[in-house]
Amino acid sequence: MSFQKIAIIGLGLLGGSIGLDLRSRGFAVFGVSSREQTCQRAVALGVANEASINLSSMAAADVVFICTPLGSIESIAQKLVPHLSPDTILTDVGSVKTPIVQPVSSVWPNFVGGHPMAGTAESGIEAAVPDLFVGRPYVLTPTAQTPVAAVAKVEEIVRSLGAKVYRCGPEEHDRAVAWISHLPLMTSATLVAACAKEGDRDIIKLAQHLASSGFRDTSRVGGGNPELGVMVAKYNRMSLLRSLSTYRDCLDEFISDIEAEDWPGLEQKLKLTQEARRSYNLSN
Amino acid sequence: MSFQKIAIIGLGLLGGSIGLDLRSRGFAVFGVSSREQTCQRAVALGVANEASINLSSMAAADVVFICTPLGSIESIAQKLVPHLSPDTILTDVGSVKTPIVQPVSSVWPNFVGGHPMAGTAESGIEAAVPDLFVGRPYVLTPTAQTPVAAVAKVEEIVRSLGAKVYRCGPEEHDRAVAWISHLPLMTSATLVAACAKEGDRDIIKLAQHLASSGFRDTSRVGGGNPELGVMVAKYNRMSLLRSLSTYRDCLDEFISDIEAEDWPGLEQKLKLTQEARRSYNLSN
Repeated sequence: MSFQKIAIIGLGLLGGSIGLDLRSRGFAVFGVSSREQTCQRAVALGVANEASINLSSMAAADVVFICTPLGSIESIAQKLVPHLSPDTILTDVGSVKTPIVQPVSSVWPNFVGGHPMAGTAESGIEAAVPDLFVGRPYVLTPTAQTPVAAVAKVEEIVRSLGAKVYRCGPEEHDRAVAWISHLPLMTSATLVAACAKEGDRDIIKLAQHLASSGFRDTSRVGGGNPELGVMVAKYNRMSLLRSLSTYRDCLDEFISDIEAEDWPGLEQKLKLTQEARRSYNLSN
Repeated sequence: MSFQKIAIIGLGLLGGSIGLDLRSRGFAVFGVSSREQTCQRAVALGVANEASINLSSMAAADVVFICTPLGSIESIAQKLVPHLSPDTILTDVGSVKTPIVQPVSSVWPNFVGGHPMAGTAESGIEAAVPDLFVGRPYVLTPTAQTPVAAVAKVEEIVRSLGAKVYRCGPEEHDRAVAWISHLPLMTSATLVAACAKEGDRDIIKLAQHLASSGFRDTSRVGGGNPELGVMVAKYNRMSLLRSLSTYRDCLDEFISDIEAEDWPGLEQKLKLTQEARRSYNLSN
């Protein structure tokens, strides 16, 4: 591998962590942030060799990672295009892929959608850490039109981060993450919203005091960043609605068993649940 | 406090941990288990000074903790009665209180319902650990008929475990834990059950690979012991059904916002959720 130049646009937790790792693997990293202060921190923290608030020097980059929030990926790609040299490969880290891959590929065919399944509770460049992606799934979502060489190049870089690479189509990705990421977010938020409907203040005060690890864990993702929740609902709306509809049907079945005092039926469901959960990769 | 004799019936995680702590605080602990081997382990592990498979020596106990599963507390209490001296105080650690407190109080008025909000993922006497209750909520559920001296005595012992004592009626307890313990269990189980309904095997395989901390935490309590899940549904049926019904209404509201693409509405809900979650004691 020759000495390669990587540009990272958006220097938050993900962009910053990618920068730290790629620099330590010998890549030259050029960072872009909309905030001058973030650029200075990026260089100081070792996230990037250089950083700037403008996109004009992108022609030198072999690969550009767009690590901005979901809502701005498409517009950043459009602004980038005039600055790219024809061979530049573009990739992103957005958590929904179909509504990104289609428009971005149409303005820049050399685009490979990506989604690292990694993160921490923190955000921003100060939260960037080395080896964030080691052992974590990193999904690439090429389409039939994506140049094979571009996919291979992005995969090579992602492997160098220590991630486990999965390839699938954008639609398959979005359906899978609707189940394991976006549905949990909504059902977890619904739990907190439902508790807040308890009309007796003494009961809810008591519940707040008694809340233990079960409530803490089940409500965690629902208590996260509201903007992020809206973004995934907006971008992955159809898959999320399908998952939510199935969830509601299953909820009705649990309620029916309890209403009917069908304890063998409920136990059977809970046994299947206990068993099914073991099939998930829960070490991530 | 004079040298007091405590009996513990049921030497699992909770009974065993209570025994370890009470012995270290200078109480004489007599353990009872239905299995001879558990009795031997209880003495070897320092959970009890003595242990036996029969209830006949209970007359010497000042306080008896019933630490068996929810389904056997009432029948154990009935078997105990002939062996108790008139002043003996009975308490339990069952996670639902109304269906325990009423029948047990009627056979033994000197009964104080209790529920420590503590546990680990493990069970059985080998899982017993010292200081399991330190800083944890421990609810006592006296009724208007419960002798005041009995409540004071149980509270004194529970405080010696380091727990934070809360007092409320059995019905208030059951409504509060329906929200923060039994509802999360069912909605978490429903999440796993819903994912299992995905008809495309490739999608669900991918989802299983990509599952990360969000799915792990949100599905955890739903993947637990099926017998325990059935037991809480059975014993706390009415409160759980009320909570589930409210949950379903809230779920429908989230779904409506997403269907209608009402993103300000969804964001408002998620902001309220994020805010409301902060009112819960999440350090337990």
